[in-house]
Amino acid sequence: MNKPIVIGMIGLGTVGSGVMRLIARNAEQFLHKVGAPLVIKHVAVQSKEKERDLEVAPQVLTDNVEDILNDPEIDIVVEVMGGIEQAKQYVTKALQNKKHVITANKDLIALHGAELAQLANEYECDLFYEASVGGGIPIIRSLTHGLASDEINRVVGIVNGTTNYILTKMSQNHEDFGDVLQDAKAKGFAESDPSSDIDGLDAARKMAILSGLAFSTNIDLSDVHVKGIRHVSLEDIKYIQNLGYTLKLLGIGDRKHQKIEISVEPTLLPNSHPLASVHNEFNAVYLYGEAVGETMFYGPGAGSLPTATAVVSDVLEAAKNLRLGTTGRSYITPQYGKDLKSNAEMDRKYFFRILVKDKPGALAQITSIFAKHGISLERILQQPKSKSVAEVVLITYRSSYENYEEVFNEFEQLDVIDSILSSYRVEGEE
Amino acid sequence: MNKPIVIGMIGLGTVGSGVMRLIARNAEQFLHKVGAPLVIKHVAVQSKEKERDLEVAPQVLTDNVEDILNDPEIDIVVEVMGGIEQAKQYVTKALQNKKHVITANKDLIALHGAELAQLANEYECDLFYEASVGGGIPIIRSLTHGLASDEINRVVGIVNGTTNYILTKMSQNHEDFGDVLQDAKAKGFAESDPSSDIDGLDAARKMAILSGLAFSTNIDLSDVHVKGIRHVSLEDIKYIQNLGYTLKLLGIGDRKHQKIEISVEPTLLPNSHPLASVHNEFNAVYLYGEAVGETMFYGPGAGSLPTATAVVSDVLEAAKNLRLGTTGRSYITPQYGKDLKSNAEMDRKYFFRILVKDKPGALAQITSIFAKHGISLERILQQPKSKSVAEVVLITYRSSYENYEEVFNEFEQLDVIDSILSSYRVEGEE
Repeated sequence: MNKPIVIGMIGLGTVGSGVMRLIARNAEQFLHKVGAPLVIKHVAVQSKEKERDLEVAPQVLTDNVEDILNDPEIDIVVEVMGGIEQAKQYVTKALQNKKHVITANKDLIALHGAELAQLANEYECDLFYEASVGGGIPIIRSLTHGLASDEINRVVGIVNGTTNYILTKMSQNHEDFGDVLQDAKAKGFAESDPSSDIDGLDAARKMAILSGLAFSTNIDLSDVHVKGIRHVSLEDIKYIQNLGYTLKLLGIGDRKHQKIEISVEPTLLPNSHPLASVHNEFNAVYLYGEAVGETMFYGPGAGSLPTATAVVSDVLEAAKNLRLGTTGRSYITPQYGKDLKSNAEMDRKYFFRILVKDKPGALAQITSIFAKHGISLERILQQPKSKSVAEVVLITYRSSYENYEEVFNEFEQLDVIDSILSSYRVEGEE
Repeated sequence: MNKPIVIGMIGLGTVGSGVMRLIARNAEQFLHKVGAPLVIKHVAVQSKEKERDLEVAPQVLTDNVEDILNDPEIDIVVEVMGGIEQAKQYVTKALQNKKHVITANKDLIALHGAELAQLANEYECDLFYEASVGGGIPIIRSLTHGLASDEINRVVGIVNGTTNYILTKMSQNHEDFGDVLQDAKAKGFAESDPSSDIDGLDAARKMAILSGLAFSTNIDLSDVHVKGIRHVSLEDIKYIQNLGYTLKLLGIGDRKHQKIEISVEPTLLPNSHPLASVHNEFNAVYLYGEAVGETMFYGPGAGSLPTATAVVSDVLEAAKNLRLGTTGRSYITPQYGKDLKSNAEMDRKYFFRILVKDKPGALAQITSIFAKHGISLERILQQPKSKSVAEVVLITYRSSYENYEEVFNEFEQLDVIDSILSSYRVEGEE
């Protein structure tokens, strides 16, 4: 029997428990694949006394993370504690002590991924983070290996399960945002403070990671334009459905002539788009490659065991590298510097829902502002809302974001506009 | 500059041309990823004089395959000639000459994959075949790497683009099989002799490869139960649509208590299933893993550049292994012997469309035969078809295949049955 691969894990929450269960359950299979057993020597937790629904041998638990970071016997450190600063310290020290690191921590990788990858390279360590995006979907490995030969120029993702659950229920049951959010909390699909999900920050972190890998450059979180779903109304959803679209919180990374834009915002998708039928808490990532065309990867974006499969697949990769003596060689330096699109270079379609004072020529004033800024209209629907107010719903053709900004500015000063109820990006058609 | 990775390619048809184009187009990117340039030294073709829509330097073309197999400078052999016996000879010789082999040849791998993998192992060579299943979808790498930590117990695939195109058009345009087939030939989605596609053999070969990898065992082509789509009628499709289902040619590999069954047959999918919205020539593979749950991989199943992305991603993997000195180490021995389910262990639902003589008690006789063999009925629809004949459409609950065989036997002798118009498997619900 070959020498075991020894693992230390930091954190034993949802994902950590899944990792322990999976390594125990498939031990025989892993022995076959790696040629050596995987042994979890220590798990660092805050309290050793806490009740857990998982049996762990007492000598495995430790409340001192140094027992892991400084143990020369430990080959691989699995970081599933979450958070940023402390996790960064631990991962840094693990790499400096020449331990290979697997992390599920999207926040850490989105903020400090480039720096940690440099460090891993310097200390000749593996640093893998498949679980940081898309839970059980092997999307990072597909980008870096399966589609390694192609030039990926568009990444469109439903990468947050909570918001996809909420938008699905609003669409299917015609319930208000607030009611569905309560229900999602009760079912465990939303956290008690759900702001990082519903305001789009969680999705933005994942899109920063995915876009950086797809476009082979370093993306900062601040490069991502973010808008959440807090203000999506049931009325919006109904209009959108009647027009043959589905509203999703989409992350979109786009590259054209080597210039990049990345956004996360509620977006209309035609019902025929493969992402439109990704429902409930499921995630999916759609890629457009110049050679391969359209591909999509679908699966559970969260959950204990699904996320654990991604962590443990990373562990297996590092373990195989250890056995082959090739750890620390998987590091991919970004090939390109970062070059972001200007507002004039970003082009898109929009959906607008506007309350208009019911005066003669009101619609003409609105449409002439679009025309003035070179934006054509694909569809317009006007109907009376009350005695003195009409509702205008319209979808534009593609134009630059700069043009839309000018339209928004003029709308603010336009007397006939009562209010802009909503405006959403539209994806998936020319 | 590091020593180039030298490639010899056998065949320059659709896929081969795509490989040449892709390697030329993304040369800079590959240099960055591999750390050495990729050079195609020779391409073996049947005729050097043939007109091609691709410019190839004359010294690259050869009509003598030995120029590739015996050239000590060539590191990697790409086999994209197709066919079985000759391709097997060449691949065998390439491996024996210690060349790493990338093939897109599903027929070769489905029939001789185990033997060739043994040989690759013996000569310490890489043997990759991502392009053999699902064209541009990185499904093989996802099975062997991305989901390596999980136990995959169900593989459901739309793995033949021609038949998916035909069934999509029949469903969307309500055209007959024959008309759509003509149209598919005209558009290049079907070959002039389409039997290997429409009779399910092409899909069976791909399912043998996928199931073998998913279940970690060697599957023979003869283990796959195959039924094609030649006899699917437009009337079947209309009934199926009215019942809320979509008819697809599905490959299904299933494992339960380590026992396996694999089939390819026209199958009803509920419209809500992720595979039901895979249209036209697209392919998709749905996996069920014990830990990850449901995942799906979607993309183009054929085509010059899409398939070339899979071939070249394999080339990049072998090239990186060459640079690391770890070629020939990716070989995965099957973990399990093959244990196939008996007919009594295979369980499934069925859709039947039966013409019944319009006699008193006819339906009762039919339903009592199902009942006698323990098969319950989920839905029954009977309506008059002509003066003396009625049509019965029914969907069963799950039961063993053995029970269905007995029902079929009794039906053959049942006087009140005029004919069984169609019977299809039903997937995706309990």
